[in-house]
Formats: sequence, C-alpha cells, structure tokens
Amino acid sequence: MQNIYQQMGDAELASALQELEHEVAEVKARGLKLDMARGKPAPDQVDISRPMLDILNSSSDLTDEGVDCSNYGCFEGIPSARRLAAEFLGCPVDQTLVLGSSSLLIEHDICDMFWRTGTCGNAPWSAYAAAHEGATVKFLCPAPGYDRHFGISAELGAENVTVPMTDEGPDMDEIERLVAADDSIKAIWLVPKYSNPTGVTFSDEVVRRLVGMKTAAPDFRILWDNAYCVHDLYDETDELLNVFDAAREAGNEDRVVAFASTSKITFPGAGVGFVGASPAVIAEFSRHMKAGLIGADKLNQLRHVRFLPDMDAVHAHMKRHAEFLRPKFEAVEQKLTEGLGDTGCATWTHPRGGYFVSFDGPEGSAKRVGALCAELGVKLTPAGATFPGGNDPRDTNIRIAPSYPSVSELETALDVLVLATRYVAAQLAQEERA
Amino acid sequence: MQNIYQQMGDAELASALQELEHEVAEVKARGLKLDMARGKPAPDQVDISRPMLDILNSSSDLTDEGVDCSNYGCFEGIPSARRLAAEFLGCPVDQTLVLGSSSLLIEHDICDMFWRTGTCGNAPWSAYAAAHEGATVKFLCPAPGYDRHFGISAELGAENVTVPMTDEGPDMDEIERLVAADDSIKAIWLVPKYSNPTGVTFSDEVVRRLVGMKTAAPDFRILWDNAYCVHDLYDETDELLNVFDAAREAGNEDRVVAFASTSKITFPGAGVGFVGASPAVIAEFSRHMKAGLIGADKLNQLRHVRFLPDMDAVHAHMKRHAEFLRPKFEAVEQKLTEGLGDTGCATWTHPRGGYFVSFDGPEGSAKRVGALCAELGVKLTPAGATFPGGNDPRDTNIRIAPSYPSVSELETALDVLVLATRYVAAQLAQEERA
Repeated sequence: MQNIYQQMGDAELASALQELEHEVAEVKARGLKLDMARGKPAPDQVDISRPMLDILNSSSDLTDEGVDCSNYGCFEGIPSARRLAAEFLGCPVDQTLVLGSSSLLIEHDICDMFWRTGTCGNAPWSAYAAAHEGATVKFLCPAPGYDRHFGISAELGAENVTVPMTDEGPDMDEIERLVAADDSIKAIWLVPKYSNPTGVTFSDEVVRRLVGMKTAAPDFRILWDNAYCVHDLYDETDELLNVFDAAREAGNEDRVVAFASTSKITFPGAGVGFVGASPAVIAEFSRHMKAGLIGADKLNQLRHVRFLPDMDAVHAHMKRHAEFLRPKFEAVEQKLTEGLGDTGCATWTHPRGGYFVSFDGPEGSAKRVGALCAELGVKLTPAGATFPGGNDPRDTNIRIAPSYPSVSELETALDVLVLATRYVAAQLAQEERA
Repeated sequence: MQNIYQQMGDAELASALQELEHEVAEVKARGLKLDMARGKPAPDQVDISRPMLDILNSSSDLTDEGVDCSNYGCFEGIPSARRLAAEFLGCPVDQTLVLGSSSLLIEHDICDMFWRTGTCGNAPWSAYAAAHEGATVKFLCPAPGYDRHFGISAELGAENVTVPMTDEGPDMDEIERLVAADDSIKAIWLVPKYSNPTGVTFSDEVVRRLVGMKTAAPDFRILWDNAYCVHDLYDETDELLNVFDAAREAGNEDRVVAFASTSKITFPGAGVGFVGASPAVIAEFSRHMKAGLIGADKLNQLRHVRFLPDMDAVHAHMKRHAEFLRPKFEAVEQKLTEGLGDTGCATWTHPRGGYFVSFDGPEGSAKRVGALCAELGVKLTPAGATFPGGNDPRDTNIRIAPSYPSVSELETALDVLVLATRYVAAQLAQEERA
C-alpha cells in the first residue's frame, strides 16, 4: 500500500516537501539536545532504589544463612540470592549461579566457554572451522534484536545469521528449517519476554518449538536472555511459558541457558546477574569460571536480597518502575498515532513491558531518518543496530528507547522523529519519480 | 647437610621416632580443626573496613566528577577510581581500567584475549599450535608461586613451565635463556612484591632484566600481579621499581600488564580490581571487554574512593591491617625457629609483607607433612599447589597462610606443623637406612 506522499500528485508532493523543509529548518534552529538511544532508566526512576543503599551499614550482620559475605568464598552465590535467581529464571536453585553485576558479561563468558572448550563433551566451537573446510559456526539472530547480543557472537568470530521476528516471537518455520539442515548453527540469541526492541513476548507454541525442534548440531544452545521478565507496564502482564520445564519435557534440558539481572530493577550496571542451565551445563560453566573467579561480590548480593527478599517484593518494586515508564510508552503511542497514524509511512509495536518500541518507516528510510534526527538534536540508536552487523536489509527499523528522557522531552523528541519520518518519506516518494 | 634425624645413630633415631609417634597420637586425640590453607584475612581484621558500608546511603550524591554512578556507562571506571588505580599500578590514568571486584578475573580475561584474538597485531596464541606442528604456547611460572595463576594458563590450554624463584625474584638467567630461544613462550606470571608465597620483593635488577630481555616472541607479556603492593607489615617497607617506567626506558612498553585490587584492603571478593598496560594493550583490551560489558559496578567504585580517597588514606588503612597480621607472621617465625631452627629439617621465608610464608621441609616430605597435618586437624594449602600442575619436583614446599586463624589458633597449628615435619623427617631418615 502506498503512503500519503506516494499517493500525492507532483505539485502536491512538492508543496508538502516545501512545508516539511520549512518545519525541519525551524526545529533545527531550536538547537535541541535529546537522547532516545539507549535503554537507560531516568534518574528519578533510578532513585526509587536508593533505600537499598541504607540496607548494609557498619553494624549490619554480613552473613547470609551462615555464609560470610565479607570474605572470600561461595563461588556459586549466596543462598538467598540463588533462591531469588531460581524464581527469576524458573529453574531449581542448584541450577543457578549468581555472579557479578552484568548478565551480558555472563552471556559473553558462557559463549566464550562454548567457543574455547565446547559443551557437554562436544568439540569446541572454535574447532569447527578446521574440521569443516573453514566453515564458521553460526548464531541465529532474530532481528530486530539486541545489538549487544550480536556483538558477542561477532567478537568470538561466529557468523550471525538474521532470521525474522514475528509478533509471536522468532519465525519458527525458518528456524526449524535452518537448524535441521546445518550443524554449524550452534546457538540462537533470544529475549523471550517484552523482547528488545519489539516488545513481543513469545507464544507458548514458539517456546515449545524452540526447545523441541530437531537440530543438526547436538550442542545447539538457546541463549535465553530474560532481561525483562518482571518489567511489566500494566497489571495485566504477558505470560511466558517456563522454558526449563518445556525443555525437560522435550528431552532437551541441556539446550537452554537462561539469564537475568537486577540491572533495570535496582541500579543499572551495579545490580546482580544470574544464569540458569541444566545441571551438566552449570557444572561445566562453574569449572570454567572458577579458573578466574574466587567469587563475585557477595555484599552486593546481600544488599539486593535484603532489599528484595522475594518475588512479591520484586513485583511491588517493579510496579513503582512502571509508574515512571507507562506514561512514556503511552506518549510514544500517542505521538506516533497522531503524527503518522493515517499516513501509511510507518508501523510500530505496542509493548506491554520492557524498554523499547520498535519502529519501521518506509523501505530505505531508517538511516536517513536517524541522520536527520541527529541533525535536529535527537539521538537515536543507530539505524541498523537492531540487525547483525548493523545491516537492516530493508533499512526500515529504528529502536525507540523512551525511558531516559522526561515525558515532555520525549514528546519533543517524538515530534522530531515524526517530522523526520514524514520528510524522508516525502523525499523518497519524490526520488521514486525522478 | 644432614638433619638431626639423619645424624642420629639407629637406636637414637628409633627412640626419637617412638617419642614423636606418641606426640602425634596425643595431638590426634585433641580433635583440632584449624585452617592455614588460604590467604583470607580474619573476620576481626575484615571488620576494620565496615565503616566503608556507611559511606553511600539513600541521600548520597551518587556522582563522581560528573559521572552518574547509579546508571549505565563509563566502561573505563569512574575518574576518581582510575586516579587511585594509576597510583597503585604506577602508570598514567589513561592507561588504567577499573573493572569489577576481582583482579584474578581481569587476568583471566586478558589472557583469554591474548589466546583468542592475539595482541598488538600478532596471531592469536590459540593459533600457535596449528602453525607450529602442534607446539603449545607456554607460560613461565616461577615457583613456588600462586596456584590460581597457573590455573588460568592451564585452563586456556597453555603449557606451564616451572622456573625457580630466588630471594631476589625469579631466576633471571634461566628465564633469559628460555625466552630468547623459544617463541612459543608468550607470558610469565609474576607477583613482584611480597610474592605469593615466598614474600620476596623483586630487586631492581630483576625488574630491569624482565622488561629489557630479548624475547623470541614479539608478543611476550609480563603478567604483573601486584596483589600486595601496599600490604606492608612494617614501617620500613620493601621498595619495588616502577615496572612501567623501566619498560618504557627499555622500549618494551607493550610487554607489561599490571593488576591490583582492593580485595585484601577492604572486603575480600567485594573490592575493586584494576588493570594497567600500554596505550595499545589497554585499547585492545577495552575493545575486547566492551563486547560483553557495558560497565562495572560504579557504586562500589564510588564507595571505595570515598573511603580511601588517596594513597595516604590507603597506607593509613593498611597500617591497621598490619596490626592484625604482624603478630601472626611473628608467631610463625617464632614457632618455626623454636621448633625447627636447629634441626636442619626445614627452611622458611621471613616476609616483610604480603599474606604468606613459604616453608620447605626435607626432600620428599611435603605431601606426607600435609597429609599428617590434615589427619591432626590442621588444613594446609595442598602440598604441591605452589607449583604448576601441583607438581613440586622435590616435594618440599608448603605454603603457610597465617592470616585467618587467631594468634593462639595459629600457634597451635604451627606446633602441629613442626611436629609433623619432625615426624616425617625422622621417618624419612629411617627409610633411608632400610
């Protein structure tokens, strides 16, 4: 279907372009400086976790169920934190490790283990090329997705393979077809709930197909980054099937490695990261990590579990986060609907949680829209970043991160995005005729 | 020279053995349970850092020179912490990174980078074998040394090569000979001040030879774990040459990678770890780490720099640690001198800092002494652990870690070590005659 600019007559389009150029010049003159680039909570939102800083003081009991959190030891994480991690991840306590402040780093480290030493008795992924005439190990990357995931596998030297996202999760027909035929496909990156950036929560069927599908590689791994597992915007929340239960039922327990952290619950970058996996994979990862780590920061684990002792406390805290985020997501929805809703120039997602809205303009528009927004003082996640190698094949996708600016700044930034999208859409319509 | 048991006549030795057996049985009956295994500070010593837990509270300013420590960002570490790290490491601020709570993990991660991706344009160390008919990359391991260092290179798949320690540092004649001839030797593990476990501080000449020597490998790296850089027991401290200055003078700036942490300054396992290296190596390590890390825990960095804002504060704090440690080291010296001083059965080091005393019994004694101590309720670092692969070729070395027990527990534990050493020495003398 054509957008409004494509539908215009030549004179009408020329006049619309002139009008839009005028608006662009006006906005440029305002010298804006706004940032919708990264999924960072706003300072006032972060401040709701400040009471956690009062929890440990010089006279506190620094033990957790007999573990002295002020000295070396307890590699696997303190007992209370592991119990909380098990609830986050949906697996038994024994199958968890509570490590440092970054789940991304745990993801990196476990992929590094797969790469260097292999998993469950299979050859190291780094050895694949030598044994297969230079063929490289591949990671499946449902896209739009999370750029830092794709960065981890790229840095290892793997080939990232783009697969489409649908509104129920990744395109399972395509994935099943690929993994059944190619044993160089060793892993898939997934954000199963309120996915980054689409906000999609995987359907039960998608989860079951992921854990049940036949893979040519015996050591295929699902990298299940449940970063937004409790990051609901509304009382009525998306529900995600327990992936560990489903994997066990399917007889593919070793396939799933799940991650979560408190980074967007307490303090971003100063939280606690968790990993959960089958007994075999947790055991091998523990051995691997113990070569370099006596134990993670147990005082920060203790601070966290005393602040958020159970899931009820977590959910209550997340409701307070939602009060900051909901108006911002609603502002995105409203501004985009008002500015682009009847233009045919764009589509976008309507997440009920997480940190992002995924926005698609006309084909070939995203890089130009991003550049124009930058010129107008609005910083966006670089166009293409949501695809492996920064290569969005249709150049349509922009990730909107509404959390950091205030609502009024956000509204201004969205006005700019709307204007830039309309202007580029009109330019493209003009260029089609040239 | 023969020890007292070797010098005895047969009857005298038999009677001495009977006497020792009797003492051993008496001690066994006491059912002791003491631990001299790891370099952990004692609980009362750790408690001197508790005031650090009062430093950040819910109303604190959480910024450091404009950096918001409560949100994502600032991968390289907060400005104040980097300045402190630069003083610890003896290199410019720009050449430091302040990361998570474990310097051991930083050591692991940078070795992993050398292994997987190489350094300064050279081939990955993992590629050496394929290019050299299966020959493995080697790490030099001055021994007795730190078991966890040797564990990192072993886990990577490198071959650990033992070189002797002298009372001025590692045996430089041997090291120069090895590295000049063999380009598979890529690195050396070093604890340059109050070394683990000998307590030796490297002489200026050793430092200069290490940074100046000709190496067949262009990508040879010195892994300079300055874990005990401020861990003096006495006002008169050992002095260590600045390795970065010396390396620059020698034109081998890229050779040195230095590490330190606050683990035995504030809270073990919950401190802050640092790394310093040449601009080129820090830049490549930053790129490597950024694939998996947005930033380390900046709130813990902030807590640390407000508690210990400069080196004067650090040294004042370390003097308080020394008050706990000095009597323990002096108890070791006294008990060993009293119990073994005129026997010819053992030698030991007399460190002026650090966490360990290195003890050598008769050849072929260490495993038996360790097993007997365990039977008598005294846990020691496993005999051999101070050598790569746990293989002490002469089976003489035991690492004494006096920090964790109280002075009176320590005295009891040392009485047991003395008894076990005498008993095993007498047994060995007996066996020599059989």
